[in-house]
Amino acid sequence: MKDANTRIGVGVIGLGTVGGGVVRLILSHRASYLHNYGIDLDVVRACSRHAEDAAATGLAPERFTENWREVVADPDVDIVVELIGGEHPAMDIMEAAFAAGKHVVTANKALLGRHVERLAGLAAEAGVQLRCEASVAGGIPVVNALEHALTANEVLTIAGIMNGTTNYILSRMEREGADFERVLADAQRLGYAEADPTADVDGFDAASKTAILASIAFHTRVVTDDVFQEGIRNISAEDIAAARELGYTIKLLGIARNTADGVETRVHPTMIPSDHQLASVSGAMNAVYVVGDAVGETMFYGAGAGSFPTASAVVGDILALAEPMSRGAAPLAEREPYRAVRPIVAAEELVNRFYVRLDVEDADARAAVEAALARHGVATEAVEAAGEGEGARITVLTAAVREGEMAAALTELEGLDVVRAVASVIRVEDVAAWSEGAMEN
Amino acid sequence: MKDANTRIGVGVIGLGTVGGGVVRLILSHRASYLHNYGIDLDVVRACSRHAEDAAATGLAPERFTENWREVVADPDVDIVVELIGGEHPAMDIMEAAFAAGKHVVTANKALLGRHVERLAGLAAEAGVQLRCEASVAGGIPVVNALEHALTANEVLTIAGIMNGTTNYILSRMEREGADFERVLADAQRLGYAEADPTADVDGFDAASKTAILASIAFHTRVVTDDVFQEGIRNISAEDIAAARELGYTIKLLGIARNTADGVETRVHPTMIPSDHQLASVSGAMNAVYVVGDAVGETMFYGAGAGSFPTASAVVGDILALAEPMSRGAAPLAEREPYRAVRPIVAAEELVNRFYVRLDVEDADARAAVEAALARHGVATEAVEAAGEGEGARITVLTAAVREGEMAAALTELEGLDVVRAVASVIRVEDVAAWSEGAMEN
Repeated sequence: MKDANTRIGVGVIGLGTVGGGVVRLILSHRASYLHNYGIDLDVVRACSRHAEDAAATGLAPERFTENWREVVADPDVDIVVELIGGEHPAMDIMEAAFAAGKHVVTANKALLGRHVERLAGLAAEAGVQLRCEASVAGGIPVVNALEHALTANEVLTIAGIMNGTTNYILSRMEREGADFERVLADAQRLGYAEADPTADVDGFDAASKTAILASIAFHTRVVTDDVFQEGIRNISAEDIAAARELGYTIKLLGIARNTADGVETRVHPTMIPSDHQLASVSGAMNAVYVVGDAVGETMFYGAGAGSFPTASAVVGDILALAEPMSRGAAPLAEREPYRAVRPIVAAEELVNRFYVRLDVEDADARAAVEAALARHGVATEAVEAAGEGEGARITVLTAAVREGEMAAALTELEGLDVVRAVASVIRVEDVAAWSEGAMEN
Repeated sequence: MKDANTRIGVGVIGLGTVGGGVVRLILSHRASYLHNYGIDLDVVRACSRHAEDAAATGLAPERFTENWREVVADPDVDIVVELIGGEHPAMDIMEAAFAAGKHVVTANKALLGRHVERLAGLAAEAGVQLRCEASVAGGIPVVNALEHALTANEVLTIAGIMNGTTNYILSRMEREGADFERVLADAQRLGYAEADPTADVDGFDAASKTAILASIAFHTRVVTDDVFQEGIRNISAEDIAAARELGYTIKLLGIARNTADGVETRVHPTMIPSDHQLASVSGAMNAVYVVGDAVGETMFYGAGAGSFPTASAVVGDILALAEPMSRGAAPLAEREPYRAVRPIVAAEELVNRFYVRLDVEDADARAAVEAALARHGVATEAVEAAGEGEGARITVLTAAVREGEMAAALTELEGLDVVRAVASVIRVEDVAAWSEGAMEN
């Protein structure tokens, strides 16, 4: 505990895009934080592998170290900010910080997606806080909304565009009618996608974020491995055009629902109605839908990445800790993690509607396709045959069906003589179901 | 201060749509608040002019009173919830609550729009909090975002659809091509508009909310009377169609910008680009844009009214106060209101672009119109003449111009022989200006 109006010492570990932004934001806004909130933030120590990273932020050279343990051990550091990402040594840093009785602010979605329960438990034991607004959707304050403003609700559904790279790619594919590989290459050239784009385009990043939000929203354990995951590599320009014809837009959504059967959690390309609020979120922007039983549908929109947007979330967490400290009070300790653990709905038990496009030998394949689907209990809402010769295809919009049955049906379809290829399989989201369980006004 | 895990006493004054929702939400969710947060909320007393309002919520009859002083004075009431609206006796209730050392939660935009500085000052003196999430945009947690999550930013701009009634009317006018009066009548029949729609359609409601958000966001005094205000009564189906032709959608926005010259604050119908995120907010929904210098553009979307959505915000505020109390700590006292007061930009100094439609004698009026505009220094970006006879009209899109000059130019236009009527004057928003002053990533 600090005397009122004393300096709050911040130690920043990791001075890359986000960490550099955090130091620059604090240095440039220190006077206004003091003026507006009576909070004096001081970056006491900063750590990176490269001294030039610290110099670039304008931090005094004597505050730089290459050894993170010096940051954690510094008695003037009240709040440890972990921004190196990955599991190690990030886990060691947090453990050491908690052992030293220091609060931790982090943007580490990979680590939290796997170990949020353990880390929150360590924070609670130490009587300090673990804050992670920046770990999901960059500068968008959705963690804060779930942990503070929307607490009166049972959260029914989280559904969001939580990965800017894939939304950028899908938006350009939609606008330009271009195929995935071409847009990906261009996104890599422009810096919107990594040289190894796996974490983004295969859904790993979105899965971590979905797990973090679900565990906060539903007060239960959800880890990244619980999240059913499919990326956008197989989405074609033709799929996007077909979706538009049907009144849909394709987005990579992370979805978590708190149902009677347990927590349903999945990341995959999703057809949503084109007039849905999430459909109009384009480019690298992020947006998260939160549906609460009292508040109904809410959406939080903003930049999901970038130096200063993410730094905004990190420094917001720092200020939230610093406010009571500046006024002579201790921040409340982290709450003990969930007192009960809800089951996770198994992947094969998830229920979705599907859009399926088949390349077929000729339009007469329709009867065989319908029979195969029927054998697996897959009801159809619409079946259309079009084209001829090489261009012959059948598109199917199914009724709601379990993933297990659909997978079996697709396997059988692939084996049919009349089917040359299963060209596309895309889930069609029942957005009305997101509000199931809402209170009636 | 309370012992940990003791009950937190809530006293609710006003059991109308919102107050009734608050009591019902707490009664139905009490067990889950205790389970998830360790907070035991107890509605100790509730006050209304009508005993049947209390009965409808399921509250025990002995907890009902018709005298608000009994609620404030009850020693078991820790938090006073004021939901009667209007200035009196709401002001007396809050003064009495602060004098008794009790926190206040309110949704009273009319009162806060005029007296937030005085009320926050009383709360600060008393060492308690004044919380008002529900006073702006119903269930959308935008006050929380400004007061907590986005504190790392200098907020540059607030711009929002903060009145559901007018957005409902404009959305239906757009969809149906119908005129204002017809849609208003239908909205009244359906309960989306009041019998006396003045507060909504003339912009009073949005002006209060804009003042509240601006004073929080910019840490300075902004009251409802500071807000330049124009409603939607003069918007016609033809205006909406013309806007669409130009790529714009007309929304009633509350806008506040923190500029070098002072705080600019205004509510009026606004043409915004149709692909802007706010343009797709339809029906009675609300959405607020917050642009911070670090985070960039963010948007908060949800229900702006309704029993449970608004109750979500009220109970969220109650839980935020109850959390430290439940854990043996006192909530921090309200911060002393702003240490400095910034000037408000005078109405005639506001700068906007304008769309103007003139009914004219014939297309030859163009030269006279252009000359009149030029005499007042109003530059034009586009001038078009169309129609003939009774249907002859000239539309003008001006460059940015001060309100004062524009008003003088319009007065002159109205007096021209060749001009039969100034049919429409609608401001065209420079949405790029909302981000002026943002940090470069």
